[in-house]
Amino acid sequence: MEIICIGNELLIGKTLNTNAQWMAKRATSLGMLVKRITIVSDDVGEIANIVREALQRKPRFIITTGGLGPTFDDKTLQGIAKALNRKLKVNENALEMVKKKYEAYVKEEKMDKAELTPYRIKMATLPESAEPLPNPIGTAPGVIVNVEGTVLIALPGVPSEMEAIFEDSVVRLLWKEAEGVAFFERSIYVDNIMESNLAPLIGKAMHSNPYVYIKSHPRGEEEKPHIELHFSTTAKDSEIAKKRLENAITQLSELVEKTGGKIKLQKRKALTQP
Amino acid sequence: MEIICIGNELLIGKTLNTNAQWMAKRATSLGMLVKRITIVSDDVGEIANIVREALQRKPRFIITTGGLGPTFDDKTLQGIAKALNRKLKVNENALEMVKKKYEAYVKEEKMDKAELTPYRIKMATLPESAEPLPNPIGTAPGVIVNVEGTVLIALPGVPSEMEAIFEDSVVRLLWKEAEGVAFFERSIYVDNIMESNLAPLIGKAMHSNPYVYIKSHPRGEEEKPHIELHFSTTAKDSEIAKKRLENAITQLSELVEKTGGKIKLQKRKALTQP
Repeated sequence: MEIICIGNELLIGKTLNTNAQWMAKRATSLGMLVKRITIVSDDVGEIANIVREALQRKPRFIITTGGLGPTFDDKTLQGIAKALNRKLKVNENALEMVKKKYEAYVKEEKMDKAELTPYRIKMATLPESAEPLPNPIGTAPGVIVNVEGTVLIALPGVPSEMEAIFEDSVVRLLWKEAEGVAFFERSIYVDNIMESNLAPLIGKAMHSNPYVYIKSHPRGEEEKPHIELHFSTTAKDSEIAKKRLENAITQLSELVEKTGGKIKLQKRKALTQP
Repeated sequence: MEIICIGNELLIGKTLNTNAQWMAKRATSLGMLVKRITIVSDDVGEIANIVREALQRKPRFIITTGGLGPTFDDKTLQGIAKALNRKLKVNENALEMVKKKYEAYVKEEKMDKAELTPYRIKMATLPESAEPLPNPIGTAPGVIVNVEGTVLIALPGVPSEMEAIFEDSVVRLLWKEAEGVAFFERSIYVDNIMESNLAPLIGKAMHSNPYVYIKSHPRGEEEKPHIELHFSTTAKDSEIAKKRLENAITQLSELVEKTGGKIKLQKRKALTQP
């Protein structure tokens, strides 16, 4: 799958892209392989280009975040419509969702009038044949549209809204696609050995453990070398996955200790699955 | 310019991409326009593809982060060499930098031997006609190579190393390119008015202030609406820039207050420039 984050605030460094990390982590835990994350500006042409490019790579899922709100610079649906060469039109299901939200806001005395201004109708104006995904927290619905072999999903940029729609409507689609394959990971920490000396040991351990990916993350060489070693694997059977990780950790730990390194095991993380 | 971040840890959501935010913010403050940020995996083919794609868009700068270290999965230079169809060969300047680092580590008693193992020589093995950029903090040098109209720069993924090489070797290149144009921004906060009611007011203010970009950032609609309005402009003259921002803020504030919204000004930020 691919993730596309839309918003000038990400390109000027105003906002830290926590959405991309959250979604990448959640999708990975559900067994998906996130192949690319791209950040583009609030520009219809840029959005259309990246959506077209991503579709050409034929991922099973493309999920966008941002640009679904009522203001002029919320342009994601225009960009998607342009990429797909489809018209934008008011979707009745989406309009009903938006209308109900504003009626509720009036009831809760958050505003005076629930009238459907053009800015509000905009949030219910979707590319043809797209359908809305209910937003349990905010106003703008998510959007889902099938494009040949790809499911294209647009989610809002407000993190709580993005996460809520993802959990309610997207998780089950990804879970079904992954067919029960899940992602498992563990880390250990190594002291007293430099990364360039670890490199051949990692090579050895990966050679003997072909289903385990091992990556070193140096945490600064200024003081004493301190390196995180991250072990990961994907499998349907959690027992097999755990066994694989344990074997690789044991073997690499022995190699490291022989070379004078010190090992610290990380507390096992809970696995997150639906 | 474009930023490319390389690392599986970003695609599985293990690591929050603070490098992209830091670099985007710094480059923007220097007057650059960051048009795209892409995250790809530690895969030579993927790296080569994204570098080729970015070069086709002909930005003045492409800066990559990650994948310059000594381990097998540090593949950025292989990917760049593949994209440019150039050979990888040991660069004598880079080798001298790496050698001196290890000699210093031995002197500081961080390690026993400074010998140039294949894993260490790897960090000095650059695409033909590329040159190293000194790394004041870690071991792997940055890399710079000119490709027709584009300057392609590769920096390490460890944040302190990336930032140090950026400050020492990259800032002056960007600053020169921007020709004294800088980025200016201010935010105000608005309460008691929903984003869909703000939308037409923002439209009006942007119409009367064509050099100012105004973007609303809702901070949740669950409770009372609370929205950040971010004003930005680029200019050579800081007085002109400030005047533009002030005019836009004054006009939009009046419109908001007429509609029943409450304004809170943000403390003015210091401008960061070299």
